[in-house]
Amino acid sequence: MLEKIDLKKNLTKEEYRAVRDQVDADLALLQRECKAAGIPVIILFEGWGAAGKGSTISRLIDPLDPRGFFVHSISAENEDESYHPWLWRFWTKLPAKGQIAIFDRSWYRRVQVDHFAKHLSQTELLQTYEEINSFEELLIKDGTVIIKFFLHISKKEQKKRFDKLLSERETSWRVTKEDLLHNKHYQELLEINDSMLEHTDTELAPWTIVEATDREYAVIKTKTTIAARLREALENRKESAKAPALPTSVSETTLRTSILEGIDLSQDTTKEEYKEELEKLQDRLKILHSELYRRRIPVVLAFEGWDAGGKGGAIKRLTHALDPRGYIVHPVSSPNDIEKAHHYLWRFWQYMPKAGHVTIFDRSWYGRVMVERIEGFCSENEWKRAYKEMNEMEESLAHSGAIVIKFWMHIDKDEQERRFKERMENPAKQWKITDEDWRNREKWDQYVVAVDEMLLRTSTSYAPWVIVEGNNKYYARLKVLRTVIDAIEKRLNEG
Amino acid sequence: MLEKIDLKKNLTKEEYRAVRDQVDADLALLQRECKAAGIPVIILFEGWGAAGKGSTISRLIDPLDPRGFFVHSISAENEDESYHPWLWRFWTKLPAKGQIAIFDRSWYRRVQVDHFAKHLSQTELLQTYEEINSFEELLIKDGTVIIKFFLHISKKEQKKRFDKLLSERETSWRVTKEDLLHNKHYQELLEINDSMLEHTDTELAPWTIVEATDREYAVIKTKTTIAARLREALENRKESAKAPALPTSVSETTLRTSILEGIDLSQDTTKEEYKEELEKLQDRLKILHSELYRRRIPVVLAFEGWDAGGKGGAIKRLTHALDPRGYIVHPVSSPNDIEKAHHYLWRFWQYMPKAGHVTIFDRSWYGRVMVERIEGFCSENEWKRAYKEMNEMEESLAHSGAIVIKFWMHIDKDEQERRFKERMENPAKQWKITDEDWRNREKWDQYVVAVDEMLLRTSTSYAPWVIVEGNNKYYARLKVLRTVIDAIEKRLNEG
Repeated sequence: MLEKIDLKKNLTKEEYRAVRDQVDADLALLQRECKAAGIPVIILFEGWGAAGKGSTISRLIDPLDPRGFFVHSISAENEDESYHPWLWRFWTKLPAKGQIAIFDRSWYRRVQVDHFAKHLSQTELLQTYEEINSFEELLIKDGTVIIKFFLHISKKEQKKRFDKLLSERETSWRVTKEDLLHNKHYQELLEINDSMLEHTDTELAPWTIVEATDREYAVIKTKTTIAARLREALENRKESAKAPALPTSVSETTLRTSILEGIDLSQDTTKEEYKEELEKLQDRLKILHSELYRRRIPVVLAFEGWDAGGKGGAIKRLTHALDPRGYIVHPVSSPNDIEKAHHYLWRFWQYMPKAGHVTIFDRSWYGRVMVERIEGFCSENEWKRAYKEMNEMEESLAHSGAIVIKFWMHIDKDEQERRFKERMENPAKQWKITDEDWRNREKWDQYVVAVDEMLLRTSTSYAPWVIVEGNNKYYARLKVLRTVIDAIEKRLNEG
Repeated sequence: MLEKIDLKKNLTKEEYRAVRDQVDADLALLQRECKAAGIPVIILFEGWGAAGKGSTISRLIDPLDPRGFFVHSISAENEDESYHPWLWRFWTKLPAKGQIAIFDRSWYRRVQVDHFAKHLSQTELLQTYEEINSFEELLIKDGTVIIKFFLHISKKEQKKRFDKLLSERETSWRVTKEDLLHNKHYQELLEINDSMLEHTDTELAPWTIVEATDREYAVIKTKTTIAARLREALENRKESAKAPALPTSVSETTLRTSILEGIDLSQDTTKEEYKEELEKLQDRLKILHSELYRRRIPVVLAFEGWDAGGKGGAIKRLTHALDPRGYIVHPVSSPNDIEKAHHYLWRFWQYMPKAGHVTIFDRSWYGRVMVERIEGFCSENEWKRAYKEMNEMEESLAHSGAIVIKFWMHIDKDEQERRFKERMENPAKQWKITDEDWRNREKWDQYVVAVDEMLLRTSTSYAPWVIVEGNNKYYARLKVLRTVIDAIEKRLNEG
């Protein structure tokens, strides 16, 4: 999931200066209010080496009253610590009521850099995730506010920063061998971090990913997030939150973590390339489909995407290669009365494939966090809870042996308009376009927010989202076919 | 935990007849109200073969409107089911809003009788527990009421029932080879059931253990529990629960699952036997303590029990055999101001032993669910949540390699009075007795309820409760020593 995030987010010096003072005043006030309300606060920073954890923390504490916070730098366990249960050193560092504890690395070390160095077994790793989630839950239920940041930079950016530090005598000591090793194995650590985020991004203690390429951006995003979370905690305590609302000079859009914004839609596969490749891929898929059947592997494919994003076309090219006795396409529309009388996931379970079969969902359970969220068909609590529920359902499917892939068919707003107009003008395609499509289009920006959050919270190792760049239909269809083929081949090779 | 439960609970025919009709009328009314409120209800029955699941269900549905419920008998998976994700057959059987689904065996088959037959790996077993908990949580958050019963009988009672069925031609077909195998391996299945109950007894979906030796008792306990849970669900919906409160002719005490009530306190170890055995055990423990140190195994011992139950005496006999550099005794009293400003478990974490050391807690974190519950020092939500939190803490300790044992020093009320009076009369012991002890004694019955619930909810495989029959001090002290020695030897032999 991390590698999909748009890391180009930034603030100009002017934008930064315009909000800095107000955010700082806000934090100082909120600290005093939390102290008065007796709320313990934990702010923790994880992320890549050289991503700026230290400097972000320095700027964070700037406006704070030093009598009210502690900064804990968490390095590898010392001997005394290693002789205790591993959570012990964190229990003993917990903030009292009204205090703020800031952690520069934290209990997540164990499943991150320490895990990279020492490699916990799979069972130990899962146990540790559970212990972490229980630990945080227990504190939160007791009134603690936990704010978790992951400072994210690319491999290239990290390398650049290490090189710069190494080039000057005064700073070169700050780069350790371990740092360089981490940069070399960035990809492996990325997977470790992805797994950590996937297992510990809970409803009560969600992660905030901080795009840290631009330092000013990282500082403002961090501070703004803290201010919002503290204000929320105070409001939940029914204390009046006297601190003024945030300055609006940095927009929510700017601070939002986005995957869609980073997508490049400029592919230019030609019709000729497409035709040639399509045939090869379909032939290959045909063979793999019978192998799936023989090996009794079920496959679940879910298609979501913008209206006119090319779901139908991509599905057609897939099914063209499949034996009709071994797959179904299930088009999903609004639930009927009987479906409404059940849990929202119930109607999808009915169509989950038998071993050896393929179910293709044309739209899916993700309607819960898109149309149902935006149109208010379910409550905020309900769609927020749904991320976890959908992840768990997909994990169940994966445990039962299924291959689960979710496609987001992505086009830009101009391309959608072009396609809508084409549909209106072409009598053979007019049935495909309705007034509702135009109405949905007006909510494009709301959908961007919902889709980005969906992609962030439900991209998992067992059921990844694949974003299909769809402005070029040929490219998109081939990518879908290739993705399915790769996933099947990978599974078959696993034995 | 199951083997500690008092199975002698029963109702006379008169008691049964006196309440039966009213409970039935109550259930009929509640069914109609739940239907009107659109609440989906799941009632599931697990337990031993021949414990009376079938007959209890027959009597349960007697007063119900047959248009509003389904009974699902869950046997081993058929071929079609085995080709789907294992939860699929349960998803497709879920009740719609306003319906009741009754399961004779359920998704728990997989971690119980099916697990006994096929043996899931440890990882698969833990995964399945998680899937079950997630499945139930998702339904409950969507408004479903889930009521889970475990029908419990002893090995002997089960054998008697099988023999009786086998002795008559009309019923002998009902006993299968599998049934007899289960009886033969009762102990192994008991551990499987204990593990199941331990992992799936959640705050949202707790288990009710039904002592099923007496069939009338089982039926009334089941029906009464269902009525109470449905009434609670209706109240939570802010629907006025129009059904009358339950008849009081069966007291709560009768229906309560108890461990303490089944304890036999008639041991009669003599002083001579004691002296001889004590010396042997202490010598043995001495050797084991240095072995613990060498192997760096930490030990956590928690002592709870009635006032004058003999905690102090037992601890003294333990520490007499221990090297003072390798243990601490931590006496626990009310928390101080700094401790009060932290999570209630915080102060105990400070004293958790280093690898190779022993910490003996004289009273412990369990105060949360005894004195704090009874005196109202914490809210109902807080002490209810605490069972899970304490289990998780102890699991963390166990994962870190610690031996964790909890002792409940048990005496009866007469013995306590005798000891209190002795303390008052003996000038050397007067300091041991305060007015508060007498005040606590007045709350004996409340403590029985709290202690029984504590023993039920926190007896785990990784941190068992050991009930020490304490009327005879000699017996009690030896049992404590033997338990500690056995646990250490078991661990050392594991390698």
